[in-house]
Amino acid sequence: MEFLVHIEVLWPADGDPKELERLTAAERARARELSAEGRIRRLWRIPGRRANWGLWEAQDASTLHAAIRSLPFFPWLSVDVHPLAAHPSDPERPGGS
Amino acid sequence: MEFLVHIEVLWPADGDPKELERLTAAERARARELSAEGRIRRLWRIPGRRANWGLWEAQDASTLHAAIRSLPFFPWLSVDVHPLAAHPSDPERPGGS
Amino acid sequence: MEFLVHIEVLWPADGDPKELERLTAAERARARELSAEGRIRRLWRIPGRRANWGLWEAQDASTLHAAIRSLPFFPWLSVDVHPLAAHPSDPERPGGS
Amino acid sequence: MEFLVHIEVLWPADGDPKELERLTAAERARARELSAEGRIRRLWRIPGRRANWGLWEAQDASTLHAAIRSLPFFPWLSVDVHPLAAHPSDPERPGGS
Amino acid sequence: MEFLVHIEVLWPADGDPKELERLTAAERARARELSAEGRIRRLWRIPGRRANWGLWEAQDASTLHAAIRSLPFFPWLSVDVHPLAAHPSDPERPGGS
Amino acid sequence: MEFLVHIEVLWPADGDPKELERLTAAERARARELSAEGRIRRLWRIPGRRANWGLWEAQDASTLHAAIRSLPFFPWLSVDVHPLAAHPSDPERPGGS
Amino acid sequence: MEFLVHIEVLWPADGDPKELERLTAAERARARELSAEGRIRRLWRIPGRRANWGLWEAQDASTLHAAIRSLPFFPWLSVDVHPLAAHPSDPERPGGS
Amino acid sequence: MEFLVHIEVLWPADGDPKELERLTAAERARARELSAEGRIRRLWRIPGRRANWGLWEAQDASTLHAAIRSLPFFPWLSVDVHPLAAHPSDPERPGGS
Amino acid sequence: MEFLVHIEVLWPADGDPKELERLTAAERARARELSAEGRIRRLWRIPGRRANWGLWEAQDASTLHAAIRSLPFFPWLSVDVHPLAAHPSDPERPGGS
Amino acid sequence: MEFLVHIEVLWPADGDPKELERLTAAERARARELSAEGRIRRLWRIPGRRANWGLWEAQDASTLHAAIRSLPFFPWLSVDVHPLAAHPSDPERPGGS
Repeated sequence: MEFLVHIEVLWPADGDPKELERLTAAERARARELSAEGRIRRLWRIPGRRANWGLWEAQDASTLHAAIRSLPFFPWLSVDVHPLAAHPSDPERPGGS
Repeated sequence: MEFLVHIEVLWPADGDPKELERLTAAERARARELSAEGRIRRLWRIPGRRANWGLWEAQDASTLHAAIRSLPFFPWLSVDVHPLAAHPSDPERPGGS
Repeated sequence: MEFLVHIEVLWPADGDPKELERLTAAERARARELSAEGRIRRLWRIPGRRANWGLWEAQDASTLHAAIRSLPFFPWLSVDVHPLAAHPSDPERPGGS
Repeated sequence: MEFLVHIEVLWPADGDPKELERLTAAERARARELSAEGRIRRLWRIPGRRANWGLWEAQDASTLHAAIRSLPFFPWLSVDVHPLAAHPSDPERPGGS
Repeated sequence: MEFLVHIEVLWPADGDPKELERLTAAERARARELSAEGRIRRLWRIPGRRANWGLWEAQDASTLHAAIRSLPFFPWLSVDVHPLAAHPSDPERPGGS
Repeated sequence: MEFLVHIEVLWPADGDPKELERLTAAERARARELSAEGRIRRLWRIPGRRANWGLWEAQDASTLHAAIRSLPFFPWLSVDVHPLAAHPSDPERPGGS
Repeated sequence: MEFLVHIEVLWPADGDPKELERLTAAERARARELSAEGRIRRLWRIPGRRANWGLWEAQDASTLHAAIRSLPFFPWLSVDVHPLAAHPSDPERPGGS
Repeated sequence: MEFLVHIEVLWPADGDPKELERLTAAERARARELSAEGRIRRLWRIPGRRANWGLWEAQDASTLHAAIRSLPFFPWLSVDVHPLAAHPSDPERPGGS
Repeated sequence: MEFLVHIEVLWPADGDPKELERLTAAERARARELSAEGRIRRLWRIPGRRANWGLWEAQDASTLHAAIRSLPFFPWLSVDVHPLAAHPSDPERPGGS
Repeated sequence: MEFLVHIEVLWPADGDPKELERLTAAERARARELSAEGRIRRLWRIPGRRANWGLWEAQDASTLHAAIRSLPFFPWLSVDVHPLAAHPSDPERPGGS
């Protein structure tokens, strides 16, 4: 099942730059793993913000939660999950009737 | 450039079922064309609603507008467009640095 | 997978009372079927409104959408779906760690 | 009477991890007690968030408040309570007419 | 248990004045009955609007729903119910500790 | 004139418990005085929150403001005031025509 | 007591122009009377909208409601009332301390 | 003085296409006049919507209102006006200090 | 041109009382000057809040911004500006036609 | 492609004035460069706020993001980007048909 996930990073403006750098590197490494596992399918920056839209895949919301929670930035994230259903006109995975 | 597009179909509950059927068929045909042109990349139903999330691609907002406006359901649509920027951790089209 | 579903019935105040009666009976019959199939687990009225909160179960959002769409009142419904993940302290189906 | 309760935990990202661990353990113990007393009927994680939806039962809002206030995390919680009325099509506790 | 109830009357501007007059009279008669039964404790107009705040009393949300639904204007009402808990400093019914 | 007042106490989760205890005691004492003066008529806890709904009475908004400002918790309060008009069906103080 | 009142006129785009003209004339006549009585102190158009902000004066919310309800456009109005308290730095009616 | 103006056209989906065509032509003619007068400086479509953002110029809000009200589509418009102040870093009309 | 200005003072509950006293005195002195210059026409407290509604006058938004920015509390203010147009029924400065 | 960008500067009221001065100067220098590159076309202060509306130009959202992120104030900014499409009645760059 696919999920559309909106993530906002609430990193404080006066946060430690070293820590931010370390977390950013760890986040990218973890994102690569989640991509390799097929958990993250697509990822886009929201222009002007420390935020992203992502297309995630998981068998259910519990598995998705575990994946999101594994992100090094998790304590600073505000996350909204939108469940997605198949659309008959989806070019990639046409479903429905 | 990719855009995340949220579309809600405001078809009235007492609308003519024949007209709805006709428009639905026309909409699917037009969606197929837009997919073939690479305008619509992905399309998902929002569960429980006459609404969808779509991943669209267009060189700019003017081209995107023309594509959305070509949908047979356009007069009944409420559309929100979210511009997307490249994310360095996007598995499919990695960008940025 | 469980989903928390909020449904508001937008029946017009000047709607035909006969039609409302007929739809209400059909809705209850369909709800009984969905309960028997294990699709609807719990259902509550929101006091003062033509609205309800429901606990639904489906393998994914596509199956859930098909079930909601099968409700006779579907054209008059405004539906919001909240995906649910397992909680380690859930008394009935404890999950997580 | 049943209540649908939405709880968001506003634990600061830079909070003391030891204290968080201690509170989490205490919260689970208290949740077990509230489940045993029939106060908490169901509990679900909201995917991606430190938040949950819960189905609580209490004779009135005062008893419910006392139960929520007894949670060790109470000072960090943002809580919204939705009162629930019986629905004639509820599979578990059918009510109404 | 007491409830704070916000009611907005969505009567159309071009509604039949005769029908409005008939409903208003019926509403007042029903409100008198609900007051006599101790269901409605207080009622206030929201200045400038066809709306009111009311203090209602009922043993639970199901009984409250039945009372609100018995109002002749019910099909035109938009209702929000706020459950109330006892406050130790309430001058009339001091509760808690 | 009566006012419906919504008060949320924004006390920080890591606030000094001694200070909280002292303020709570002072708040109750002040609430008793305001009740004795007929300023506070009713007071209810909002279940699950450090918040209350209150029915206040004052000749005008200036007098009401002075009363609210006299609360020891005032610097931590977020307050919303709803002016109330007489309703012909109010059981306690019937007004209008 | 002064009130800040926001009024939006929800006149339908396809409403009868004759009726609109008649109501507009009646509204102006009634506004003149309310001004003469000291009920309306100031009135401003909100640019681009069929809406206005007004400074009204009345001894309480009940009197204000009666005045607003006397407007010929009342059935088409959406009204929000903001109660105003004296400010020590008000140039015209300095109050407080 | 410059204003940023957001205009949404609430034309009904089942509106008369002839009337829509006529109004669209009249709107363009009027927009040309307002541009020639220096009232409308820039105009952009909001992609996917019957809506636009415009940069308008007028000596005050009254003059702006008269200009907006002169649009043939005015009865169908929902308009929000944002007043603009000079910014010292504005490339075109640098102001401030 | 007149503007309706909503100002909320976001002074922290644990702010230095001496500083608050000093700023309050400076704010009143500056408000007196702005009143003498005809910049502030009216000022009202919003009951229950550290907030006010004000009627300001300035030739344009740039002049208004300079005046608001001159307030000693400016760094703690959240300000919303509503531009006002003349209304033909305004008792004090009737405009329009 | 043009974008309408809303920027709010969340600089803390108790921030270091020296740092604020330094950042403001750096911000202006960077804004001049972005203007010279044709990235920033127009810039307006929002009266009463540390905020601005800007008209930006970039070939896509990724280029726009890089430009916004280069602002010295970026860690303190809350940014909303509105994509703009050509409007046939735009006086400066008329497009469409």
